[in-house]
Amino acid sequence: MSDIGEDKRVRTRREEAGDDIYAEDGSIRADFLAMVGASIADRDVLFLRNHVARLHESELGDLLESILPDQRRALVRLLGKDFDLTALTEVDEAIRLEIVDQMPNAQIAAAIGDLDSDDAVYILEDLDQEDREEILAQLPFTERVRLRRALDYPESSAGRRMQTEFVAVPPFWTVGQTIDYMRDEEDLPDSFTQIFVIDPTFKLLGVVDLDRILRTKRQLKIETIMRQTNYPIPADMDQEEAAQLFEQYDLLSAAVVDDNGRLVGVLTIDDVVDVIQEEAEEDIMRLSGVGDEELSDTVVDTSRSRVPWLLVNLVTAFISASVISLFEATIEQVVALAILMPIVAGMGGNAGSQTMTVTVRALATRNLDIHNAWRVARREAGVGLINGCLIGCLVGLVAGLWFHDIHIGGLIATAMLINMFAAAMAGIMIPLLLDRAGADPAVSSAVFVTAITDTTGFFSFLGLATWWFAIR
Amino acid sequence: MSDIGEDKRVRTRREEAGDDIYAEDGSIRADFLAMVGASIADRDVLFLRNHVARLHESELGDLLESILPDQRRALVRLLGKDFDLTALTEVDEAIRLEIVDQMPNAQIAAAIGDLDSDDAVYILEDLDQEDREEILAQLPFTERVRLRRALDYPESSAGRRMQTEFVAVPPFWTVGQTIDYMRDEEDLPDSFTQIFVIDPTFKLLGVVDLDRILRTKRQLKIETIMRQTNYPIPADMDQEEAAQLFEQYDLLSAAVVDDNGRLVGVLTIDDVVDVIQEEAEEDIMRLSGVGDEELSDTVVDTSRSRVPWLLVNLVTAFISASVISLFEATIEQVVALAILMPIVAGMGGNAGSQTMTVTVRALATRNLDIHNAWRVARREAGVGLINGCLIGCLVGLVAGLWFHDIHIGGLIATAMLINMFAAAMAGIMIPLLLDRAGADPAVSSAVFVTAITDTTGFFSFLGLATWWFAIR
Repeated sequence: MSDIGEDKRVRTRREEAGDDIYAEDGSIRADFLAMVGASIADRDVLFLRNHVARLHESELGDLLESILPDQRRALVRLLGKDFDLTALTEVDEAIRLEIVDQMPNAQIAAAIGDLDSDDAVYILEDLDQEDREEILAQLPFTERVRLRRALDYPESSAGRRMQTEFVAVPPFWTVGQTIDYMRDEEDLPDSFTQIFVIDPTFKLLGVVDLDRILRTKRQLKIETIMRQTNYPIPADMDQEEAAQLFEQYDLLSAAVVDDNGRLVGVLTIDDVVDVIQEEAEEDIMRLSGVGDEELSDTVVDTSRSRVPWLLVNLVTAFISASVISLFEATIEQVVALAILMPIVAGMGGNAGSQTMTVTVRALATRNLDIHNAWRVARREAGVGLINGCLIGCLVGLVAGLWFHDIHIGGLIATAMLINMFAAAMAGIMIPLLLDRAGADPAVSSAVFVTAITDTTGFFSFLGLATWWFAIR
Repeated sequence: MSDIGEDKRVRTRREEAGDDIYAEDGSIRADFLAMVGASIADRDVLFLRNHVARLHESELGDLLESILPDQRRALVRLLGKDFDLTALTEVDEAIRLEIVDQMPNAQIAAAIGDLDSDDAVYILEDLDQEDREEILAQLPFTERVRLRRALDYPESSAGRRMQTEFVAVPPFWTVGQTIDYMRDEEDLPDSFTQIFVIDPTFKLLGVVDLDRILRTKRQLKIETIMRQTNYPIPADMDQEEAAQLFEQYDLLSAAVVDDNGRLVGVLTIDDVVDVIQEEAEEDIMRLSGVGDEELSDTVVDTSRSRVPWLLVNLVTAFISASVISLFEATIEQVVALAILMPIVAGMGGNAGSQTMTVTVRALATRNLDIHNAWRVARREAGVGLINGCLIGCLVGLVAGLWFHDIHIGGLIATAMLINMFAAAMAGIMIPLLLDRAGADPAVSSAVFVTAITDTTGFFSFLGLATWWFAIR
C-alpha cells in the first residue's frame, strides 16, 4: 500500500544504522527492540526520530506489531507529526484502530493530506462515520472530493483500492511536449510507470508506458504511440476480479474508469499483490473454519469468530454418532469394532480433505471448469480406488493380526475401500456443486465432506460387520 | 512469466474477434472451443493463425489446458512457427512436457531465441539434460551463454527467475544522452521500468526509475539522480526470500547480482507474483497433505504423491485406536461411550486445526515470532477454554438428554473441555516447535495435532468414564 519502489527512507536509515533491523528468522532484532523500548521510556525523541521515524513504512509496521500496546501509544505520541501514517496500512486492523483512536482528528487530517489517496482511503474506511467526516472536513477541497469519491465505491472494489493521482495528457501532444510537461510540473504522483491519454471530458483514449515514451522521437504525437487498453477496470469491479486481470495479463498498473468511461484513478500492482495474498489467505483460513481473524484480535473476538464453525461441525458429529448408535447391539458383541471404527472414518476424512483441497484451489485459480471437471472427477475416482485398495489391504492386515481375526481384517479392508472412494467423490463433487450453486466452496466444503466420510465410514464398517455376523 | 504490460496481441485479437474468449464463469467459451476444435479437425491453419496464434500467451495457455491431448498436439503442429512458446509458461508442467516432447528440438531452439530469457529458462529447466544441450547448441553464442548462466543457478533461485535483458548506463552519462541512447538502440528489452547504473566491470552502482528520468532536465548527470538500492538480490537467493523483499518494499523490479556484485539480470514483479501465489498455494496443499501435484497429473502419479500422507495418518489412527482398546471393558459395559467418543475426538480435531492454520499462516507471513508468540499462545489458551466450556456444555446437554443419563452428560462435557484446551495448545505449540526445529510447519503439523486431539479425546473421555463408573 505504498508508492512503487520508493525507498529513500530505508537507504537513509541503513546508511546511518549500518544494519538491518531484522534478525535471521525474519523477526525484528531483539537489541533493536530493546533500544526502541528504552528510548520510549526515556522519551528520547531524537533517537526515535533518527532511528524509528526513518524506517520504511513496512518496517515501522512490523515494529508497531512487535512492541506492547503501551509502547505503541507512547511511540506515536512522541513522534507526533514525524509518525508516518502509511505504516498503518501495514499493521493488523485492531492495531490500526487502536492507534488511530488515540490520535486527535486534527493530527490525522494533517497527516492524511500527505498520503497517497489509496493509503488515505485504506485508513479512513475503517473509522466510524463521525470521525471520518470530521477528518474529511479539515482537508483541502480537492483532496476531500477525491477521497469522498473513492469512499463512495463499495468496499473491496477497485474504486476503493485505486490511487486518484495519475498523469494524463491529450492525444495531440507530442512526446517532447509530454516530457517537458513532466519536467516542469511539480504536482506529479510520487512514482508512476505509465501515462494515460484522455479527451477533454476525461474519457480514456489510451495508455503509454514510460519506456515507450523514452524510446520515441520528441516530435511524434502521443496518439501515434499510445495503445488502447483492453482492461480499463470499472471502479465498482470487485478487487479480486481486478487482481485476476493483473495476474492473467501481467499488468503493472491499469486505468480505473467510472460508468461513463471517464478516468478516475489507477490501480497498481503493489495493491494487487496484497489482494492476491489476501485471497489465498482467505481460502486457507476458510478451509479450516477460521474467519478473517487477525493475530491481534482479543480472546473474546477470536472465540466468537470460531464458534459458528465448531457448532456446524457439532451437528455433523452428532449425525455420525447417531449412525453408530444404529449398530449398538453389534458393538456390544464385538468391541473390536468400536476400537477400529475411528480408523475407517478418520482415513476417509484425510483422503477426502486431500481431494477437496485440490478441488477448492483449482476452482479458486480457475484451473477447474466445465471443460475438465469430468476428466478430473474420473482421475479422483481412480485415485480413490487405488489408494482405497492400498490402505484397505494394509489396515485389513494390521487389524486382522491385532485381533487375531481374519473376518475383522476383511471387513475393515472392504469398508476402507468403500469410504476412500466415497471420500474422493465427496471431495470433488461437493466443492463443484457448491461453486455451481454460487456458494464459496472454501467456506463449507469441509463440513459436508467430513459428514460424508464419517457417516459412510461408520455405516459401511458397522453395517458390513452386522450383516456378516448375522449370516455367519 | 512474460513481458510486463505487453498486450499487443490481445488488442489485435480482440479488435478482430470483437469479443472475449472467456464465458461469465471464467472458463473458455464453449462456442470458441468448438470453433477451435473444428478448425483443428479441418486443418484450417488460416483460422488458427488468426484466432488462436494471436491470443495472449495466458489465454493460449488456458486454451491448451481446455482441449484434449490429441487436439493439443495437432494444434501445436498446425501452428508450427506461429505457436507462441511463451504460452508454455502458463500451463501445467505435465502439459508443458507433453507439448515440448513432441516438438523437434530444432523448432524449439528457433522459438526459444525469441523468448525473454526468464521464459526460455522456465521451459528449458524441465527438459532432460540431453534435449537441453541439443537445443542450447543451436542457439547463437551470446544467447547460449546467458541461458547457461541462468541455468547454472540453483533451482528456485532468483538467478533462475531473472531476465538477463536490461538497460544499463554509466554514471557520467547525462539524462539527455541516456534518452538518446534509448531512442537509437534497437536491442532494448521489450519493456522495462528502471535502468541500472554500472561501472565498466558491470558492478552495480545505482538505479534510476523511468519516471525520474522523465522529470529531469537533459543536462543533469545520471549519477546525480540515481539512488542506491538496498536490495540488489544475490542470484543464488531463494525465490521465496526475494519475493518477500518485493512484497515488503513494494518493488517493481530489482537488480540481480553475482557474488562479486556484478549486475547479471533483473527480477520483475510479474515473476514474483507467480512465486507469491505458488507459496501460498503450497501451504494450503501441505496443510491437507497434498504435494505439488497438478490437475493434469495422471492417476498413478497423483495416487503416489498422496499415499505417504495417508500412511503417516494411518500410524496415528492406529495409535488412537490402541488408546481406545485400553478401555475395552468399559465400552463393553456402556456402549453409549463408543457412540459418543468420536464426537470428543472430532471436535478437538476441528478446534485444533483452527488454531494450527492460524499459527502456520502467521509463521509463513512472518507475523508470528518470538516477540508475540507468548501473547498469542495465551490468547489461544483462553479461546480453547472458552470454546471448550461452550461446546462442552452443549454436548453434555444433548448427550445427557439422548441417553437419559446425567453422568454421561457430565463426563462428555468435562472430556470435551479437556480436549478443546489440549487442541488449542497443540495447535499453537506444534507449528512453533516444528518451525524452531527448522522443519516446515505446514507439512507435518496436521498429523501431530490430530494425533494429540484423537488420543486426548479418547483417553480423557473413556478414562474419566472408567474412573467414574469404578468409584460409583
